[in-house]
Amino acid sequence: MRILVTGAAGMIGQKLVARLAAEGHVGGRPIAALLLHDVVAPAAPPGLAAESVTGDLAGPGAAAELAAFRPDLVFHLAGVVSGEAEADFELGYRVNLHGTLALFEALRQAGSHPRLVYASSIAVFGAPFPEVIPDDFHPVPLTSYGTQKLMGELLLNDYTRRGFLDGIGLRLPTICVRPGRPNKAASGFFSSIIREPLAGREAVLPVPREVVHTHASPRAAVGFLLHAATLDAAAIGARRNLTMPGVAVSVAEEIAALGRVAGEAPLALIRDAPDPAVWAIVRNWPTRFAATRARDLGFAAETSFEEIIRIHIADELGGVVPRPAS
Amino acid sequence: MRILVTGAAGMIGQKLVARLAAEGHVGGRPIAALLLHDVVAPAAPPGLAAESVTGDLAGPGAAAELAAFRPDLVFHLAGVVSGEAEADFELGYRVNLHGTLALFEALRQAGSHPRLVYASSIAVFGAPFPEVIPDDFHPVPLTSYGTQKLMGELLLNDYTRRGFLDGIGLRLPTICVRPGRPNKAASGFFSSIIREPLAGREAVLPVPREVVHTHASPRAAVGFLLHAATLDAAAIGARRNLTMPGVAVSVAEEIAALGRVAGEAPLALIRDAPDPAVWAIVRNWPTRFAATRARDLGFAAETSFEEIIRIHIADELGGVVPRPAS
Ligand SMILES: NC(=O)c1ccc[n+]([C@@H]2O[C@H](COP(=O)([O-])OP(=O)(O)OC[C@H]3O[C@@H](n4cnc5c(N)ncnc54)[C@H](O)[C@@H]3O)[C@@H](O)[C@H]2O)c1
Ligand SMILES: NC(=O)c1ccc[n+]([C@@H]2O[C@H](COP(=O)([O-])OP(=O)(O)OC[C@H]3O[C@@H](n4cnc5c(N)ncnc54)[C@H](O)[C@@H]3O)[C@@H](O)[C@H]2O)c1
Repeated sequence: MRILVTGAAGMIGQKLVARLAAEGHVGGRPIAALLLHDVVAPAAPPGLAAESVTGDLAGPGAAAELAAFRPDLVFHLAGVVSGEAEADFELGYRVNLHGTLALFEALRQAGSHPRLVYASSIAVFGAPFPEVIPDDFHPVPLTSYGTQKLMGELLLNDYTRRGFLDGIGLRLPTICVRPGRPNKAASGFFSSIIREPLAGREAVLPVPREVVHTHASPRAAVGFLLHAATLDAAAIGARRNLTMPGVAVSVAEEIAALGRVAGEAPLALIRDAPDPAVWAIVRNWPTRFAATRARDLGFAAETSFEEIIRIHIADELGGVVPRPAS
Repeated sequence: MRILVTGAAGMIGQKLVARLAAEGHVGGRPIAALLLHDVVAPAAPPGLAAESVTGDLAGPGAAAELAAFRPDLVFHLAGVVSGEAEADFELGYRVNLHGTLALFEALRQAGSHPRLVYASSIAVFGAPFPEVIPDDFHPVPLTSYGTQKLMGELLLNDYTRRGFLDGIGLRLPTICVRPGRPNKAASGFFSSIIREPLAGREAVLPVPREVVHTHASPRAAVGFLLHAATLDAAAIGARRNLTMPGVAVSVAEEIAALGRVAGEAPLALIRDAPDPAVWAIVRNWPTRFAATRARDLGFAAETSFEEIIRIHIADELGGVVPRPAS
């Protein structure tokens, strides 16, 4: 099996590539060749021969070069995140829309008909919402990022219907706990308030503790991608974009879970500092999803926020739970 | 007021331009300049000075030339219809998606911030449907045409939210009775079965008479466009794409209405000839819409199919109802 990963140097991309390298196969089919692409040089995984190409996916000829690899499976993860796509209108459209258009067109013209797994986002939804968002609720994005992701979903569905691709779009919830330094996503604080206190650093909470949001771990995100890679297409039907499951919790519940896992000490490092600019964005975000179709198709996330924190500790902190303050 | 009409040589475009010429103003604001664009040379309307430009909207520099006109009001009607966009994949994307992208981008860069009225379509919806499609039902197109129209809607909403345009998208139902010769739209028979028998010619009905569909007259379509041109934007809210109202009837009811208007003789000219290819498309089409938001905003269509037939007779046949057979 020949696999292409775009956005391979990103947070999810790196974790996916590490998992592919560790397993050596996808759904029992051995990985014969792996091509990694990103605008930042992607690191080669240990133990698996991989080529890598560094460049702008939307640049002239870039997508055609990737399509010439004739992948059987594509993970399309390259993207400019929400905060940046909102701050830089042209960059967001260039990467998220035109990069995706270029990739799909190049794959159509190359004719290798790959299974393509696309990282979409719950940012395709915009307020007002029902209490729980059903699978057939209309997506009306309130950000340029959400607009671009949804346009990619529509292309994916049409290219699949026409037989040019075998696409599956995954509307990922906010992936948490995001490791490393904070990025430009407006959702960053959901991770900071767990990651930073666990590391003994202060974290700022810019929204009220009543805010409810849906999360899955980076490990669950990689699980979604791999499940989509091997799913029987007939089971999915004509609607190829799926809202992924996750854990819907309030910020207060997240903080309580942190206390149960790591004791009271880290909680004192969370400083409430309401930020009207962040709140203006976050209050238009979706909260809870039914995700019925995805669950029925076997996509599974964590079942509690405590589990999400424990996965962060296992995968990023060497399994060491910081000693609770006595 | 400076007005640009794309697709001005088309069926709706011609009727809109004739109405603009007849009225000389839009919502009380006199028309100072009118620019007509189409890939087919648009005819100048009688009684109103109009410039016209002939060319491909998606061609290099074409959209920038139109934006340099600095319109206050744009009617974006140019498009490749459903049957043709399905038959010619590249043409459909070039005109319906890239033409729209080019127009919106050129207008953003020119900075005249026009009200832009966009001709979208109920083809943004795809089966399965609820009995009546509510305004918040998710659009999942089952044609490339519907995909392209929906991508245009999303762009319109985002460009409006960002303040680059003041857009309103209208999801038009099937416009009926379409005058002139049949075109490449799969919906053509809905018009043929009325227009052709009224002219003493045979018409073929390729689908079962039980099929229910929603229609509005060409006159109503022009009314929607003009109403959208002057609507108070604050009343619309953030969701700028609206499903238009129409008359939902079965083919059997349409034929009965024809009988009431023109007698029994034309009915004998309708020949049932089921066509599996047409049926495969039509059975995935939406039937009835709530169109609550549009009705509340004052968009009005006909209230019966008889009225739609009488408008055809008034506007296309000089008001002469063909003599009923005795
Ligand atoms: N992390 C989340 O919470 C989340 C939620 C929903 C959707 N997503 C989507 O999942 C995908 C991966 O997310 P992530 O958290 O790993 O994001 P990330 O920002 O860590 O990774 C995205 C990668 O895309 C690359 N990229 C940007 N512009 C590019 C270009 N022009 N050409 C090639 N590569 C380019 C970046 O360099 C980066 O490595 C993204 O598309 C993101 O929008 C993420
Ligand atoms: N008539 C309907 O039932 C209906 C229903 C829903 C939506 N619409 C939409 O309303 C609009 C007008 O519909 P219509 O019935 O008048 O269609 P039409 O086909 O009569 O007119 C469309 C016009 O667009 C022009 N055009 C095509 N490609 C072009 C290009 N590359 N550059 C510039 N112009 C180009 C065509 O020459 C034509 O004159 C279309 O966008 C159509 O998709 C129509």
